Amino acid sequence: MKDLELLTDLYQLTMMQGYLQHGYEEKGAVFDIYFRNIPNGGGYAIAAGLEQVIEYIENLRFTEEDIEYLRGLHMFNETFLKALKDFRFMGDIDAVPEGTPVFPYEPLLRVKARIFEAQLVETALLNLINFETLIATKAFRVVTATGGGPVAEFGLRRAQGPDAGTLGARAAFIGGCQSTSNVLAGQRFGVPVSGTQAHSWIQCFPSEIDAFRAYAQTFPDECLLLVDTYNVLKSGVPNAIQVGLELEAQGHHFLGIRIDSGDLTYLSREARKMLDAAGLYHAKIVGSNDLDEHTIWAIRAQGAPIDAWGVGTHLITSKDTPALGGVYKLCAEEENGVYEPRLKVSENVTKITNPGIKKIVRFFDKAGKAMADLIALEDENFVEPLTIFDPVQTWKKKVLTDFTTRDLMKPIFRKGIKVYDLPSLQEIQAYAKEEMDTLWDEVKRLINPHRYIVDLSPKLYNLKQDLLQRISEQVNEVKASPKIK
Amino acid sequence: MKDLELLTDLYQLTMMQGYLQHGYEEKGAVFDIYFRNIPNGGGYAIAAGLEQVIEYIENLRFTEEDIEYLRGLHMFNETFLKALKDFRFMGDIDAVPEGTPVFPYEPLLRVKARIFEAQLVETALLNLINFETLIATKAFRVVTATGGGPVAEFGLRRAQGPDAGTLGARAAFIGGCQSTSNVLAGQRFGVPVSGTQAHSWIQCFPSEIDAFRAYAQTFPDECLLLVDTYNVLKSGVPNAIQVGLELEAQGHHFLGIRIDSGDLTYLSREARKMLDAAGLYHAKIVGSNDLDEHTIWAIRAQGAPIDAWGVGTHLITSKDTPALGGVYKLCAEEENGVYEPRLKVSENVTKITNPGIKKIVRFFDKAGKAMADLIALEDENFVEPLTIFDPVQTWKKKVLTDFTTRDLMKPIFRKGIKVYDLPSLQEIQAYAKEEMDTLWDEVKRLINPHRYIVDLSPKLYNLKQDLLQRISEQVNEVKASPKIK
Repeated sequence: MKDLELLTDLYQLTMMQGYLQHGYEEKGAVFDIYFRNIPNGGGYAIAAGLEQVIEYIENLRFTEEDIEYLRGLHMFNETFLKALKDFRFMGDIDAVPEGTPVFPYEPLLRVKARIFEAQLVETALLNLINFETLIATKAFRVVTATGGGPVAEFGLRRAQGPDAGTLGARAAFIGGCQSTSNVLAGQRFGVPVSGTQAHSWIQCFPSEIDAFRAYAQTFPDECLLLVDTYNVLKSGVPNAIQVGLELEAQGHHFLGIRIDSGDLTYLSREARKMLDAAGLYHAKIVGSNDLDEHTIWAIRAQGAPIDAWGVGTHLITSKDTPALGGVYKLCAEEENGVYEPRLKVSENVTKITNPGIKKIVRFFDKAGKAMADLIALEDENFVEPLTIFDPVQTWKKKVLTDFTTRDLMKPIFRKGIKVYDLPSLQEIQAYAKEEMDTLWDEVKRLINPHRYIVDLSPKLYNLKQDLLQRISEQVNEVKASPKIK
Repeated sequence: MKDLELLTDLYQLTMMQGYLQHGYEEKGAVFDIYFRNIPNGGGYAIAAGLEQVIEYIENLRFTEEDIEYLRGLHMFNETFLKALKDFRFMGDIDAVPEGTPVFPYEPLLRVKARIFEAQLVETALLNLINFETLIATKAFRVVTATGGGPVAEFGLRRAQGPDAGTLGARAAFIGGCQSTSNVLAGQRFGVPVSGTQAHSWIQCFPSEIDAFRAYAQTFPDECLLLVDTYNVLKSGVPNAIQVGLELEAQGHHFLGIRIDSGDLTYLSREARKMLDAAGLYHAKIVGSNDLDEHTIWAIRAQGAPIDAWGVGTHLITSKDTPALGGVYKLCAEEENGVYEPRLKVSENVTKITNPGIKKIVRFFDKAGKAMADLIALEDENFVEPLTIFDPVQTWKKKVLTDFTTRDLMKPIFRKGIKVYDLPSLQEIQAYAKEEMDTLWDEVKRLINPHRYIVDLSPKLYNLKQDLLQRISEQVNEVKASPKIK
């Protein structure tokens, strides 16, 4: 993620020039990234995109060409352009590690920096976190639906541009996919790549069996044959069986077949019978064709003997929810050297922000299952028995005992220096799986999941109420012209 | 679009190695890119992405690092890796120019090349054409809904990665948006950029009016004020009016206000009254907040006095249809130096491909309105009166008279050399507008549009029927083992 210094909204730059002109550029500000709604009607999201954020921050420099372009817009003065030229990110960033299950209103990432810096990075950070979190989440849903059958991500041709295909393949791997078709994602991120042949291969040869034999000859130990170019049951499967038996007779292991059209339940059952009748019990059946988690679930519920899955468009675009609505909201501001909590009101109660510099504390029971999260202020500690309550329906209480806790957010940058050791992609995938294992199955149900409890600490709740009260009084009394905090 | 040589599906590479091993690499093949369904329930799509395709093709080289990575996969032999190292695209490409309205089954782009080359480029070409066409189409829908009120695209933070935000901004401009918030899209593609201030600006100052005054001071002639940080009607609009009057008194032109939350109909009507009562008749009202074409249409139908629109997530992700299902299908193959038409059958009749090397002929009436398109074979000419018929419901006929015609596809590459002069982005936008003006409003209706007629020429229709007949006979008779054409 290099050369992205101009991947920002113009208003970040106009505001930065304004801060500079009015002497606010050194003022410290703290922003949270969080989302309000879980995508795909699900019960969780899986944080991803932090590695790209780190790379973006570390490479954040304005080139001469950038400055020249901005000068040509005739909106910016030379003082500001000079400040951009010298720009380095010197702030602090905290974030939840990639692969962590996260929930609405939890800060996935926090930026504490001069407002001049914090403002600039908003757009790129949201772009990266929103998309990868979205796809990691969708991937875990798809993998959940297969019940463990491996999933190959192959949506690149339908992805929303090259980055979407490549970052999406990375995120899908974090969410539990086994491989991607995208070779660039393999090269850049080390995602395992997979793929065999397309219909055009079959069409290129004089006959289907010629095409199958040719493929078997070139890749004798990786021979998975696409059987739906002409007719799955009349032609594709019989030809594949013939070539499979030839391969096995030569001492190779025949991998199996892929069915990419038609009714996967019916075709896979018939194909399984034919493969078994030929003695090819170990040959796998791979299913693909516009699949998502719901179709996979339904096909499996009908007993389709599909061993592995290829998933494209629905996964790489998160088709049913193609955007995670992550936002970047001011939660504290420096005032005479002290960070004062800030809050944005809204007619819509779900859009009111949580003030102050916060952390996320996850509470685990003795068996290691996650019971609830508290969004709390940075300096809070919790002892049992702890009574927590819903921040809207405050009469809904729960007493937590016998728990262990974990702070989810980790320091990533301190004064512009990275202080975080990036795990490998394989480690992130393994961590995501472990962390998802701490959630109850009820929370992971694909439809109508149980809502995981995320409450505010009493201290944060009270701070928020106080601030709301003060703002409301000020707006009503003096039409918002006085100092509003 | 550089360094994308590995932006391909692994199976393209495995097939390429197979073609090479079996002596098929020099065989000529022709592939069409087309889609089957119009996105967003609409009546048209607008082709886009060609400029990026051209850049991709011109930069298609494998580096030492690429070869090293591929070697490390232990799937590829040295003969193949050597062939990749020497790889240059030497084929022909024809395509419809960006900004052209297009319809299902029409070839947006055709590749005629050695199969070794044609196979490699499939994935990247689909990725680029699918996404930009999708967003140009969505943008035109949004612009249609505003009835001419300018639209600023500002979805970068919710776009599916950096490229999606940047290529999306380009495509949205082609579709008729006036500007983007994405500065990188401005720098790379010359899309006009726009933006003023966010809620965080307002929050950073001691009071809302202080924030407004500060902005007005920094950008006195580009002062559009965001009025919903505290309370639109009690605080934001009165403060904006005060600052607007101050600006006007100083001889500046006050641009107006932006409302980013709450009910846009109610708030814009009340705000308009307040602005008018203050004599700020010319001050504009900009509306934003999770808008799409349907919400904009509904708000306008209620008479909301909104002059300009900011559209984010729904536009940049084409949220209701986040993928154009463009495919890349073999339509002809070289056989003894002659290109023979090819066709892929499917149980699903809509998935049967159109064989042969084709062109798209658009028929215009005397008033210049588009009456129908014919997908035809390359060498066909049409004279009036011409009877055309629906390729499925063949009894549905139409006689065309008094027409002029235009071939939509243009030569882009010949033997690997670009033979096409790229228009500027501004020219593409103007061309798209002109071309869309040739369509009847009925085709451009946002919901339940009239279906534009796209038929097959009689010659193409007959060729397709003949091939289908022959394949069906062969599959039934000999289970697909003989030569199938």
